[in-house]
Amino acid sequence: MNKHLLLNLLFFFALTVTSQAQEALFRAQNIVSPEIHEDGSVTFRLFAPTAQTVKVSGDFLPSVKMETPMGQMDGPGNADLTKDENGVWSFKSKPLSPELYGYSFSVDGFSTIDPSNPFLIRDVASVTNIFIVGEGQADLYRTQDVPHGTVTRRWYDSPTLGMDRRITVYTPPGYEKSTEKYPVLYLLHGAGGDEEAWIALGRTAQIMDNLIAEGKVTPMIVVMPNGNVIQDGAPGEGSQGFYKPQFMIPKTMDGTYEGAFKDIISFVESSYQVKAEKANRAIAGLSMGGYHSLHISRYYPNTFDYIGLFSAAIMAREDATGKVYSDFDKTLLAQKDNGYKLYWIAIGKTDFLYDANKEFRSKLDGMGMTYEYVESEGGHIWRNWRVYLTQFAPMLFK
Amino acid sequence: MNKHLLLNLLFFFALTVTSQAQEALFRAQNIVSPEIHEDGSVTFRLFAPTAQTVKVSGDFLPSVKMETPMGQMDGPGNADLTKDENGVWSFKSKPLSPELYGYSFSVDGFSTIDPSNPFLIRDVASVTNIFIVGEGQADLYRTQDVPHGTVTRRWYDSPTLGMDRRITVYTPPGYEKSTEKYPVLYLLHGAGGDEEAWIALGRTAQIMDNLIAEGKVTPMIVVMPNGNVIQDGAPGEGSQGFYKPQFMIPKTMDGTYEGAFKDIISFVESSYQVKAEKANRAIAGLSMGGYHSLHISRYYPNTFDYIGLFSAAIMAREDATGKVYSDFDKTLLAQKDNGYKLYWIAIGKTDFLYDANKEFRSKLDGMGMTYEYVESEGGHIWRNWRVYLTQFAPMLFK
Repeated sequence: MNKHLLLNLLFFFALTVTSQAQEALFRAQNIVSPEIHEDGSVTFRLFAPTAQTVKVSGDFLPSVKMETPMGQMDGPGNADLTKDENGVWSFKSKPLSPELYGYSFSVDGFSTIDPSNPFLIRDVASVTNIFIVGEGQADLYRTQDVPHGTVTRRWYDSPTLGMDRRITVYTPPGYEKSTEKYPVLYLLHGAGGDEEAWIALGRTAQIMDNLIAEGKVTPMIVVMPNGNVIQDGAPGEGSQGFYKPQFMIPKTMDGTYEGAFKDIISFVESSYQVKAEKANRAIAGLSMGGYHSLHISRYYPNTFDYIGLFSAAIMAREDATGKVYSDFDKTLLAQKDNGYKLYWIAIGKTDFLYDANKEFRSKLDGMGMTYEYVESEGGHIWRNWRVYLTQFAPMLFK
Repeated sequence: MNKHLLLNLLFFFALTVTSQAQEALFRAQNIVSPEIHEDGSVTFRLFAPTAQTVKVSGDFLPSVKMETPMGQMDGPGNADLTKDENGVWSFKSKPLSPELYGYSFSVDGFSTIDPSNPFLIRDVASVTNIFIVGEGQADLYRTQDVPHGTVTRRWYDSPTLGMDRRITVYTPPGYEKSTEKYPVLYLLHGAGGDEEAWIALGRTAQIMDNLIAEGKVTPMIVVMPNGNVIQDGAPGEGSQGFYKPQFMIPKTMDGTYEGAFKDIISFVESSYQVKAEKANRAIAGLSMGGYHSLHISRYYPNTFDYIGLFSAAIMAREDATGKVYSDFDKTLLAQKDNGYKLYWIAIGKTDFLYDANKEFRSKLDGMGMTYEYVESEGGHIWRNWRVYLTQFAPMLFK
């Protein structure tokens, strides 16, 4: 055995803490999964010689109806893998359209990630593998050989909430060497998300880098705060340590966050080279973040010229009382009278919030409050929110 | 059903892309794993009603001998979980000493992560769950309610390598508002690692925040570059996209990185408020990064006053030729004659690089080149490298 190979193998063992890696080395080291083919089809593989059934489940397969306590809903489709003589299970998909997809395996009914694919995203408490297929729109989600912006995780003081809080900030390529001031997009996550959501699930840094390189997006700062006021940082990143994230986080839609949002603006405008004026402030968010964007943009008068509601969770809440929610119609009218450059509403045709958004649009129509509206295929999914960001960002600060 | 709960559940389904999350909701939603008890014991749980055997494997269990092509080596221990009437398997450990541990499950021989624990680290291509037990040393690895530094992922130009490369930089609390200049620690990863390794596996940001808050560490900038010159960024973060990382990356120990290291110093000293002088530069690294630190610190004369070799991969390499490796003894002697404040060598008693480090120390002894030496328990593992960082950092820039 070559001396270097031996040494490298020794390294490998020494670094290894689980039997998973040993298996990977001895039995499954040549497994490639997923394998993306030229035509956009994808082969998934899993080494599991003693398993009886192996399935792959993901958003690249036709959705299936599933029974839930609330009745039938759409769920991710699944497909059976077949086993070869070496104990390697595989499934080849049909050619997929360009996109970032998520998937997981089920081995004899037990759900698991793909051990051959270390690329994972966490959504609330679920971890799934991801892969990217194709060009065009999918290329916007890739790290390409273009000038790159900087992604910073830092902590800001929120006097209103009485805590230091973690925040993610994207600054565009060239920011550090520039003496210019930049416009700012505040980009808000949904329920169950945090200050990591837009970077990890939303591919914000890649989208902005690529669209700026194409000359389609004005270089801007993107601020991604944490909308859960009971947390100082994302699960595992804040002082609450490691815990199993819950979807239903209290106090996220009761006005506390909106009321404290001034601390975020104040931090950003005192810490970065920004154009601190309405014409250079945008706010957008998905689902709960759309709800936040709606309320923040009318609660702080004359503050934002660009508002984006992505599948916004527009709803009356019993806990939404107090100053932030008083005078809803009055503040909305004031927002209309003060003027803005873009009020952008996007939602998928099968989104469960479709009707609530339709109702809200009727309200805006009745008030003569103008907006642009985009209706996409699909439902309440990250695939749509990434697309919405690629559509919304080019319209800002022009 | 309460309207908000219904809506929240609807959200949950809408956000979900895999059947894993559905299971988690319907059948396993109350599973807590790992559960850390007051006395430091830990209960692991897994919902797998149809499984025949479930094991947990991790570095918190006594290691076992395992057969490899290179003979017997130490491997992580494992323990059997037992099943209750609800299909929930569990195992309770004995009380563990304060530490950050890694583990995975094996279900009927198939290795998998713990679906109840979304906290994961990637080491090369292996993903394992982590948890933290106890106080004292373990508290250094937690995000605590102390002033926090900033962690930045940005890209620097490496003219020597002809590419933009991704780099991780920690700046200490207060850096952004300060006009002071700071000392710099260059902290290098091992083989198979990248610019994410020290932050994720090494808990660098937590260690620095906590030790700075205790007044034990001088506020400093910590620069964590990528030592694999064929990559522009970590797997999944660079322009090579998503691929299965390999342990044996070519051109990592052939002098190319050391020769290009001047680009990193130049970037840091032109981009940050740093004290650009020998007395305020430190370089340290683990394993391959120890090898790099050894060579960089002698190849660039009079550049570093503090050198740290953590389980350093000290070895003669056939591919290590050319300018960087010529005059090894001569440059080491020059380093001795030029002087330095600390040459720190640490290694575990069972590390497979123990003898190579012993031989190197003999060489230094023979040359009259002074160093400090720390010999720990254990082998070539992240547990030791985290501890070494907590020991090394307090000695810098005093």
